[in-house]
Amino acid sequence: MLSSTIEIVTIGNELLIGKIVNTNAQWLSKQITNIGGRITRITTIADDVEEIASVLKEAISRGSNFVITIGGLGPTFDDKTLTGIAKAINVELELNDEALRMVKEKYSDYSDEGHSSRKELTPHRIKMAKIPKGAEPIFNPEGTAPGVLFRTRETRIIALPGVPSEMKAIFKDSVKKMIRKAVGKMLFFESTLEVKEIPEPDLAPLIDRTMKDNPLVYIKSHPKGGETKSKIQLHISITSSDSKEAKKRLVKTIIEISELIQEKGGKIRKIQR
Amino acid sequence: MLSSTIEIVTIGNELLIGKIVNTNAQWLSKQITNIGGRITRITTIADDVEEIASVLKEAISRGSNFVITIGGLGPTFDDKTLTGIAKAINVELELNDEALRMVKEKYSDYSDEGHSSRKELTPHRIKMAKIPKGAEPIFNPEGTAPGVLFRTRETRIIALPGVPSEMKAIFKDSVKKMIRKAVGKMLFFESTLEVKEIPEPDLAPLIDRTMKDNPLVYIKSHPKGGETKSKIQLHISITSSDSKEAKKRLVKTIIEISELIQEKGGKIRKIQR
Repeated sequence: MLSSTIEIVTIGNELLIGKIVNTNAQWLSKQITNIGGRITRITTIADDVEEIASVLKEAISRGSNFVITIGGLGPTFDDKTLTGIAKAINVELELNDEALRMVKEKYSDYSDEGHSSRKELTPHRIKMAKIPKGAEPIFNPEGTAPGVLFRTRETRIIALPGVPSEMKAIFKDSVKKMIRKAVGKMLFFESTLEVKEIPEPDLAPLIDRTMKDNPLVYIKSHPKGGETKSKIQLHISITSSDSKEAKKRLVKTIIEISELIQEKGGKIRKIQR
Repeated sequence: MLSSTIEIVTIGNELLIGKIVNTNAQWLSKQITNIGGRITRITTIADDVEEIASVLKEAISRGSNFVITIGGLGPTFDDKTLTGIAKAINVELELNDEALRMVKEKYSDYSDEGHSSRKELTPHRIKMAKIPKGAEPIFNPEGTAPGVLFRTRETRIIALPGVPSEMKAIFKDSVKKMIRKAVGKMLFFESTLEVKEIPEPDLAPLIDRTMKDNPLVYIKSHPKGGETKSKIQLHISITSSDSKEAKKRLVKTIIEISELIQEKGGKIRKIQR
């Protein structure tokens, strides 16, 4: 069961001080999981060139197939992602013609909206077209700062902006197909059950046994409102290239665990396909 | 401006597949920031002993003062945090008398609730009292699995359960005062402004200038709904041991940036103290 390993790096002090919840990482993880990619790590760091460079070097040394950064691509002084990438891979930033064309086109669109200063290519705007030497800009359908792709020997580094609508748009428009191609035919299937009237420690041996009988299936229990409150969600999942076989295995697993739980006096209910 | 550096490690496949949003990390970051601690990194990894051990070793080698893990302390096979910690610091897991007493007391409480099987100390229940040799259990006011504290020479490793109510209860009850003591008198102050009718690239040089004039204050801009939509949140913050001085600096910064923005035709509004 081979699969592409993918790391997400979210960049921004606002995440480290707990000002915002990292919904970007959750959205992207879900999207990538659904097309069969495997997220192995999500790291959140500050807007700091050294930190960005060292996290990227670590991810490359782990041999991850993709590292996707989110945040820090805009025009302000604290948008440091591209400098961090350049440092990690030991190249310079340079003005990229295609990226500059993308930025220019956006500002000529905006100039129609009436605000004359929006037309000018100020140094802060040009900053968004300075990308690591050897990298390619990725078209941003929703905003100004292009995404960036840099290929190292094993790892593709992809930089996306932190504004959710822009991150999502670039992902859907370009990044999704790159990952889908690398992943091949892998697909992710899941099901969630709600279990009542059996505490988690009593459920644990039943999960162990069912997973032993169904080696490709992963089962995880999530107590809701405390381990002893007797309401537990069971998340059952499988990643496979064979959709029919995967569904069959999922159903077999659900039947087995349900029977074991009912034998112990527990109640079970499917809450999501 | 010294401050304790703190890393958070959230453990759980459910986070990597995007099934849930990492609200635990956000809650804990906010709490720690508010008492003056500095979160330097948040890492999310799978329920995997090798991964847990290697992330902890990395954090220790960075000299972080605290590493707080969230998740993986319960009774099931996929609760692997303590095994991961033991591996990282090269000790064995052993049955801890105080931890066992904590677990036993919980189950004798629950036995009053009428379900007789709840009284028994099954192997899955005893598992929660097996902690790394040399570690101390931390009382869990909300659930069964105790938290765990292990002191290395520079780094204190603290393991908290992933159930939000239990994680929060142990933090408030025990961990908060440990961090407060390490941090000393440091406090965090912040203010948020909403800026309209000025695009982010035009705002960037104004932020640069204000930060140069107010070196201890940090300003970050967050475009809302796209860089060109002209609605931007400015988050202004300072960490200091001197509450009066910090507030003065914050107010001075707000006045300076507001004046600069209004000169450029932008509109500004304070939305949070």
